[in-house]
Amino acid sequence: MPNIYLDYAATSPLKKEVFEAMLPYYQEYFGNPSSIHKDGQVAAAAIDRARESLARYFGVMFEEVIFCSGASEALNLAIKGVVFNHLFSKNSSEKPTVVISALEHSAVEQACRLLEESGLIQLKVVPSNVSGQYRVEDFLDALDRKTLLVALVYVQNEIGTVQPIKELARVLKKQEDPPYLLVDAVQAVEYFDCRPESLGADLLVVAPHKFGGPKGVGILFRRLGIALWPLISGGEQEFGLRAGTENVAGVVGAAKAIELVGDGKKRAFRRKRVGEKRQIFEEEIQKRFPSIKILGKEGKRAPHISGLAVRDLNAQQALIRLDMAGLSLSMGSACSSRKMRFSKIPVLLKLPSSYEKGFLRVSFSEDTSEEEIRMALKILSQKLYGERD
Amino acid sequence: MPNIYLDYAATSPLKKEVFEAMLPYYQEYFGNPSSIHKDGQVAAAAIDRARESLARYFGVMFEEVIFCSGASEALNLAIKGVVFNHLFSKNSSEKPTVVISALEHSAVEQACRLLEESGLIQLKVVPSNVSGQYRVEDFLDALDRKTLLVALVYVQNEIGTVQPIKELARVLKKQEDPPYLLVDAVQAVEYFDCRPESLGADLLVVAPHKFGGPKGVGILFRRLGIALWPLISGGEQEFGLRAGTENVAGVVGAAKAIELVGDGKKRAFRRKRVGEKRQIFEEEIQKRFPSIKILGKEGKRAPHISGLAVRDLNAQQALIRLDMAGLSLSMGSACSSRKMRFSKIPVLLKLPSSYEKGFLRVSFSEDTSEEEIRMALKILSQKLYGERD
Repeated sequence: MPNIYLDYAATSPLKKEVFEAMLPYYQEYFGNPSSIHKDGQVAAAAIDRARESLARYFGVMFEEVIFCSGASEALNLAIKGVVFNHLFSKNSSEKPTVVISALEHSAVEQACRLLEESGLIQLKVVPSNVSGQYRVEDFLDALDRKTLLVALVYVQNEIGTVQPIKELARVLKKQEDPPYLLVDAVQAVEYFDCRPESLGADLLVVAPHKFGGPKGVGILFRRLGIALWPLISGGEQEFGLRAGTENVAGVVGAAKAIELVGDGKKRAFRRKRVGEKRQIFEEEIQKRFPSIKILGKEGKRAPHISGLAVRDLNAQQALIRLDMAGLSLSMGSACSSRKMRFSKIPVLLKLPSSYEKGFLRVSFSEDTSEEEIRMALKILSQKLYGERD
Repeated sequence: MPNIYLDYAATSPLKKEVFEAMLPYYQEYFGNPSSIHKDGQVAAAAIDRARESLARYFGVMFEEVIFCSGASEALNLAIKGVVFNHLFSKNSSEKPTVVISALEHSAVEQACRLLEESGLIQLKVVPSNVSGQYRVEDFLDALDRKTLLVALVYVQNEIGTVQPIKELARVLKKQEDPPYLLVDAVQAVEYFDCRPESLGADLLVVAPHKFGGPKGVGILFRRLGIALWPLISGGEQEFGLRAGTENVAGVVGAAKAIELVGDGKKRAFRRKRVGEKRQIFEEEIQKRFPSIKILGKEGKRAPHISGLAVRDLNAQQALIRLDMAGLSLSMGSACSSRKMRFSKIPVLLKLPSSYEKGFLRVSFSEDTSEEEIRMALKILSQKLYGERD
């Protein structure tokens, strides 16, 4: 019996159509896109088509699409690429400031912490309010004339709160010598318009494996004119910004996954459907466990993430019980949970200490059925606190 | 009609067994290896098994295997990781020296050039002799007490010459405060023992797509104790050295491809078989085109690469003619040829200027048939100079 999977924010099953789009590049068209013979050119054309299709979808230029190996790489290329270009190519002697929210994914946070510990940047982390929602004003104090880069996640990956990207972008553009705005859109793509231009993002990152695409591919959209110091030097792939033989099948799969996300109408429909399912879930949770806090509920949230703070719970032990009973949930970002770290969310949102180890993330997709939700609620009722074994 | 493919050094078709090993991780086991529920743990176990299998094959410890997105990334992580650790973590104020051969792959060369241009290292490039073969003595002059890293490619990717890694390693170990030795083993794995310890390599890089594995995966073997400044920060994947959700299917495929390479006996057999085919090819080439120089022939070569310097030829135009006639060759490293750059080999090996634009790489595999070689020779006879159209 497979588990009921309510961990779509961690990763998602590869969609059949995506797999079928990838297949020919495993079975038949194996060439290296950098080869000038036809074996290579068939592969190069596939990469070109994928890039074109993504450029069209995201309203950017062909040259603004940079294929990477995942969102973590893409975020690191954006951050370290901008900072290193400033320090090493422009040879600026002034230590730049980087401003990020306290709710960034670990790739953004850790990249910035490493740069700070290395003495290369001054890092300012803007604290969140207790509902996990930023207002633009929160960032104003942190900005100074040395600010090179500002990062704000569009949809927070543990509680689903939607951040005011457009508003922040507008304010940043008014600064003298405006900093770049980096947007982690990893959890947003299926539900919201993520075109960098309409958001005002200079750099934006997408992870296809979160919505039916393959693992091993991520996309960085970079506004033309933003110079990046490449983390991976070598061949001239990706406009000289990211060397290495392309993961052809992966890139083709990434484009197909985006195609399946569809247009604004499809996204709105998905937002509604998934949101309705989450509502069933959350209402029932509140009824059965009145002490559970649903985080970020006060403001705008993406429809697929439910961040639960559970009183007097050890989330780690609970997840193992739930897993054994047939339910796959998460205790936060998958990218840190193998080490069994508790989420920082309860601390960041200033919850009472009785909630500190009790954070659980439940995440849905359009494939989640009401039957699955009912089953999940049943398992949660029986196993959450482990008393009724 | 597919082309006759004699460009195996650029990339190779995915092997059926590799594809079949990967399939379950596309179709069934989709979890994120960082998730602690069973959907994730099945994927984590697959990564663990792949790592174990590679560790056994290469005679290293489990923790010494670092999965990357390709050899270019792995080489950049080795170089920039070591240099940045020296500069930013150890906070050394002394600019380190990096010594590389002139015959390195562009990933090594460009990574080092970028570091040099950025004012972060002093780069010394050791020139090659005219046969593309190094002697250890060539490196001695370049070494100084600030030398942090030395890179030498095991099998040169354009002419196939085998470099004296073990001898160099022995000499380096005798230095006071020995530098690290980085070995690009990308073209060597199918034919030679590439265990880091038997070679004396501290860092060694492998690219499975060169021998029937998938694109999008590369492996860095790093001797424990060598600290690397991560290029991709975030989650704690790959022992904290390389963040990001793992390309599970790719990693599984990489391990399978290595398994299929087999042991020393299989490699010796492959070396002999492929070498015999190349001999047929090269003898015929010398007979039909006495002015063609087969580069590196004087010394030890891997059996699968034939680097041809063709007098008064424009390799670019020739490749297009040959491609149209049904033969896929290369004008050098695939990683630079999309930009239609001529190989630097004729200049590095000090050939007369009439050979400068005439470099062609022909590369074979154990799947290359004698029939294919005969056909390739026929096409070359007719189309190489384009006179007999």
